[in-house]
Formats: sequence, structure tokens, C-alpha cells
Amino acid sequence: MPRWKPDAAERLQAAALDLFDEQGFERTTIAEIAQRAGLTQRTFFNHFTDKREVLFILSAELQQRIVQEIATCDDTTPPLDTVVRALEAVAETVLEQRRTVTARRHAVVTANPELHERELSKNAALTTAIATELHTRGHPRQTAFLAAGAAMLAQQAAFHQWTTPGETRTLSHLLTEAVHSLSTTVSNPATRKSHQR
Amino acid sequence: MPRWKPDAAERLQAAALDLFDEQGFERTTIAEIAQRAGLTQRTFFNHFTDKREVLFILSAELQQRIVQEIATCDDTTPPLDTVVRALEAVAETVLEQRRTVTARRHAVVTANPELHERELSKNAALTTAIATELHTRGHPRQTAFLAAGAAMLAQQAAFHQWTTPGETRTLSHLLTEAVHSLSTTVSNPATRKSHQR
Repeated sequence: MPRWKPDAAERLQAAALDLFDEQGFERTTIAEIAQRAGLTQRTFFNHFTDKREVLFILSAELQQRIVQEIATCDDTTPPLDTVVRALEAVAETVLEQRRTVTARRHAVVTANPELHERELSKNAALTTAIATELHTRGHPRQTAFLAAGAAMLAQQAAFHQWTTPGETRTLSHLLTEAVHSLSTTVSNPATRKSHQR
Repeated sequence: MPRWKPDAAERLQAAALDLFDEQGFERTTIAEIAQRAGLTQRTFFNHFTDKREVLFILSAELQQRIVQEIATCDDTTPPLDTVVRALEAVAETVLEQRRTVTARRHAVVTANPELHERELSKNAALTTAIATELHTRGHPRQTAFLAAGAAMLAQQAAFHQWTTPGETRTLSHLLTEAVHSLSTTVSNPATRKSHQR
């Protein structure tokens, strides 16, 4: 059963998840992670620059795929839809089959301030990469920033629901729903009008 | 000319901004910051837990004021408008009169990865505080999260424009415009329909 990127990095992540769960992020050493994975510290450092990075094995590849999806999208598609379709494609081809480990990873990251801070950085970098790609495709800078940020906001809401115990709908489905909810929250014309001063 | 919170903390921030500008964040010590401000290291640590915090003197107070504005807002106001009004109130009463120092601070924070990471954390904490207050006021959890996130996204876009050299419009004005742009980006019904699969 070949999975996406089934290598030492995944074994190290699985070991790190176990150890962070058992004894916390702070108290776990890189030596312990390598040992639990049946690998050497040297192998660890061949893959990761520090202890936090071991839980971000998909970040670079996800970002690359998302930007690539956007780059190949039909030019006439509005910017938010372009990003949402790219996120849906990646949800379907990469994340859905990794639901259990992704949910577990998410719980560990959320529980550890240092890991959470790294996650915020990665998300900000991804948002910037998406906005840059939209801008390259001709959208004004602010539109690109708002479309990227809005799509990532819906993605976060969907991801939170997707990793909730008992939830069975797919991430892609939940993302479509979250975009609709965001649309409702942001775009009541009566609201917008009454707000103008 | 009494300003808001005109104390040792502001002097330390001004000294830190000068030094980070002159020699970079990494190469500046807390001792140097205290000396430049004409204060002791002990005073520094009375105000801040680490070197990064010296550029976040307004964060706690801003968060408190924003949440308070939301708490006292009319119950019938839709959630996004509730948050936008709170952000506008704080922009007018706190930030507008501090435009020069805020723009300078923003440039330094953006240029230093460690400071930028701290900024992302503070923004995430503020978003959570806003969402929690909206949820307390009876909005469903996802609506609260999306309204808080959307308002913060518009605020970021407005803030970026407000700190651009040559820009003279107020932050409050730019925020209103950014909310309109976000509304346009997110809420094209034709777009949303064609997107459904």
C-alpha cells in the first residue's frame, strides 16, 4: 500500500507524535525521536533543521502543490474560487487519506505553544505564497491578499471541523461549506450599507 | 502633550526601535536598550519578559479595548460589523495619533522573523479573544470564528495600506474600504454558484 512520501521523515514524525503525546514537546529530545523511529540523529538532521520541523513534513510539498494548482487554473476564474479549488484538490489528493495522523498531529500542535507558533508561521508563509501567485496572474495586490486570506480562513474553519472526533464528512466538502458560511458572514448587503458612515 | 500610556515602556520601545534599526534585532542586547532609554535592565524586566515583548507594548491594552467594545455593542448588530466597529473605535482613539511610531514599528517587526513570529501569535490570540467574545454573545462557534478572522483580515489589509509611505487616509477609513473589498472578493453569488459541485 504505497502512500504519499512513505520515508524516514514519516517514521520520524510518527515517533515524535508518540513521544510528544506521552511526555510533552519540551521534554522530548531529538535523540529519543530518532531512537523510537529506529533511525539515527544524523538521519533526523538530514531531514529537519530542528525539533519542531518534524511535525511539518508536508508543509513544503503542500505549498508547492497549491501554488501549482493556482498557476494552472483557468484565467477567468475569480481569485477566491481559484484558491478554494486548489485547496480542495490538495485536500482530496493528499490530506483525506491521511485523516487519522493529520488529526492527531493537529491536536499535538495545538497543545504546544512552540509548535503552534511554527504552524502560524507556516500558514502565513502559505498565504503569502498564494497571494503572490494570484498577483502574478494579474490580480491587484490587495485583492490577491484578501482572496488568499479568506480562502485560508475558510480552510482553517473546515480543518477544525474535519479533525473534530466523530466528524465523517470530507475536508473538501467541509471547505465548500465553510466558504459559503464565510460568504454569508461577510456579504450581507444590508449590513454593509448600514455600516457605512 | 500627554499621550496614551506615556511611561518607561514607551521609552524602552523607542530605544529598541532605534537599536533594531541601527544594528538589527539579533545583535541588540536588553542592556543596550535599557541604557539607550536611560533606564536600568531591572526596569526593562519589570515591563517585559523578553527582548521581543518591548515592541508589543500596546497588544494587551488593544485586545482588552477591542473585546470591551464588542461586549458593549448592540445585540442586533451582525457579528462582522460588531468586530469592525470595535476595530474602528480603537483605530480612532488609540492608533491614529500614533501613526508614525506604529509605521516604524511595523517595518521593524516585518523585517525580523522572530518579531514577525511573535506578531503572528499576538494576532492569533486577538482573533481567538474576539471569536470567544462573539460566541459568548450567542453567535455559533464557526460564525464567531469566521467573523473574527474576516475582520482581522480586513484590518491587516488596511493596516498595510495605512503604514505605506505617502498614504494619508485614516486607518478607520481604510478599514471600511478593506471590508468592502473583502465583501466583493468573497460574495459574488454567481461565483459561489458556479463553484458548487
